[in-house]
Amino acid sequence: MTMQNRLTVQALQWTGDALKVLDQRQLPEKIVYDEYKDAEGVTEAIASMRVRGAPAIGIAAAYGVVLSVRKQYAQSNQWRKKVAADIDMLAKSRPTAVNLFWALDRMKAELANQLENPLAAMLACAEKIHADDLAANHKMGELGADILAGAKGVMTHCNAGALATGGYGTALGVIRSAYQRQRINVFAGETRPWLQGARLTVWELSQDGIPATLIADSAAAWLMKSGAIDWIVVGADRIAANGDAANKIGTYSLAVLARQHGVKLMVAAPTSTIDWTIENGDKIEIEQRNPNELLPACYSEKGSLVSAWNPVFDVTPAELISAIVTERGVVLNPSEHSMRGLKNAI
Amino acid sequence: MTMQNRLTVQALQWTGDALKVLDQRQLPEKIVYDEYKDAEGVTEAIASMRVRGAPAIGIAAAYGVVLSVRKQYAQSNQWRKKVAADIDMLAKSRPTAVNLFWALDRMKAELANQLENPLAAMLACAEKIHADDLAANHKMGELGADILAGAKGVMTHCNAGALATGGYGTALGVIRSAYQRQRINVFAGETRPWLQGARLTVWELSQDGIPATLIADSAAAWLMKSGAIDWIVVGADRIAANGDAANKIGTYSLAVLARQHGVKLMVAAPTSTIDWTIENGDKIEIEQRNPNELLPACYSEKGSLVSAWNPVFDVTPAELISAIVTERGVVLNPSEHSMRGLKNAI
Repeated sequence: MTMQNRLTVQALQWTGDALKVLDQRQLPEKIVYDEYKDAEGVTEAIASMRVRGAPAIGIAAAYGVVLSVRKQYAQSNQWRKKVAADIDMLAKSRPTAVNLFWALDRMKAELANQLENPLAAMLACAEKIHADDLAANHKMGELGADILAGAKGVMTHCNAGALATGGYGTALGVIRSAYQRQRINVFAGETRPWLQGARLTVWELSQDGIPATLIADSAAAWLMKSGAIDWIVVGADRIAANGDAANKIGTYSLAVLARQHGVKLMVAAPTSTIDWTIENGDKIEIEQRNPNELLPACYSEKGSLVSAWNPVFDVTPAELISAIVTERGVVLNPSEHSMRGLKNAI
Repeated sequence: MTMQNRLTVQALQWTGDALKVLDQRQLPEKIVYDEYKDAEGVTEAIASMRVRGAPAIGIAAAYGVVLSVRKQYAQSNQWRKKVAADIDMLAKSRPTAVNLFWALDRMKAELANQLENPLAAMLACAEKIHADDLAANHKMGELGADILAGAKGVMTHCNAGALATGGYGTALGVIRSAYQRQRINVFAGETRPWLQGARLTVWELSQDGIPATLIADSAAAWLMKSGAIDWIVVGADRIAANGDAANKIGTYSLAVLARQHGVKLMVAAPTSTIDWTIENGDKIEIEQRNPNELLPACYSEKGSLVSAWNPVFDVTPAELISAIVTERGVVLNPSEHSMRGLKNAI
């Protein structure tokens, strides 16, 4: 229990024969873990947003492949085909976060190397993806905190915390590390429509003893005008080769507002979030979720004149980002050129 | 019923001896009118946001004075003192919307002129405030629609509609008039924390046969980037002598974003919303409402590290406004100078 207490809250736990997933839709009121024993279950856990956050989605999918191998290898001599189908299914659970495809590609490569019973090696690969993500977050925390030195206030958006990752968090990892060095005021946008900021971020920070102030998303500009924040720190779901970054809807809005108010924007994300195959953010598929996430139920009647537009990510152009912080180093004023420097260093 | 059907939804109805107030907190699920027979009740209806919207607050307060006169004149020879106390109480119901103080000042002036039983004259004054507001909205609708000619898409924020006024609406009056001339795409921000956009604006528009698309507040920048809107049209709670305009939190955000995306901002408000006594927006008191409007209940425990910052208005500087539309004319590119032109014309 002592070790457990020193860990930040955990979105994902491997039990030995199942993946336990903290149902984030029920936070902060209830802490409920669901247990999944097959890839279908993990796919559903991702699609339904029981687990969310780009790195956590990747890790969950990796364990989903382990569960698939576990089930199919024992049952069928067609197991490679069936595991491949499960991987395809997992890949379709959400479209925007690239960590999902990155983790599945790693698992596929590992699987291709296995001639005997692949289970132990596949589990080791998933656990390494998980452990590496946690370590990367701690590294990003230190690198990001260096940059935040002297800041009095920061704001974050959505939840890029322990709940969104293998632990500690990307943006919240940076905020955790910065707070340990020097008290800073932390603001969080509530992040409609899912309220990740209200339900997850301020809860997670308070669990760690870090005071946090919640604001309506639309109050961010007024907060910036008051001079209360120096930096906005967010995660990312996919970063293009030129540094354009897809993240939760509203990030682009904050980026434009920040530039107008002399506030800087930091994107903290592991290198697994970078999609080197796309030159810029125009190529990133933006997930459109169900309008009912926004619409009161009474508008769902047939013939209703009320509809909703519900893109759940947007793309912030690199020129509005002051720093991209990864576990392999920091890119200041990201551009195609400076990002290539990071790529060469990896 | 025929006449009734031609009217937009009504937030306030005078019954002859009481004020019926549509409880807007229950929309769109339920249409419930509460009846008030004294000034205390009307004060509570305003403070609790059963009725909201700057012009509607002013009209409700005027009827509140009628109810006070009705009660106090019959009961006490100290009635002038008691009515004055009721007026002071009504004035404290909300701090930002200037129409409240404007309407109470008109009612006070009328009262000072009455030597005999003042009831008929006071009721006539309140009814004139109500009728003038409705007429002003129709006038603004035409003037604003002239400016929107050729626009393909508009966005509004909060609810500056029939529900917020004596009928027809300020910003939604402009949108109604524009839509009658030529189909335009109408977008509404949901407007956290009270969701006036989701609960009131799209409901009110759909009641009038105008299709509307709801978006998360934080999606507005992404919508602007898509090129879908040419104008943002909003109401105001108070406009300073230089054209700075206080309106629902998030309006300032939209104004900054609009300027960066080549989208124009129109503020539609009757001249009763202009506070000529303050030179600029820095002097406008911004109401801070209860943090619990934002915070999930579990954060209310003693010792909670989670708090909320809940300003419910912000101030948009005049230089970000392309047009202020009033019933007495339009001020393009408002400034101290151009606003003085409007003042001289009144």
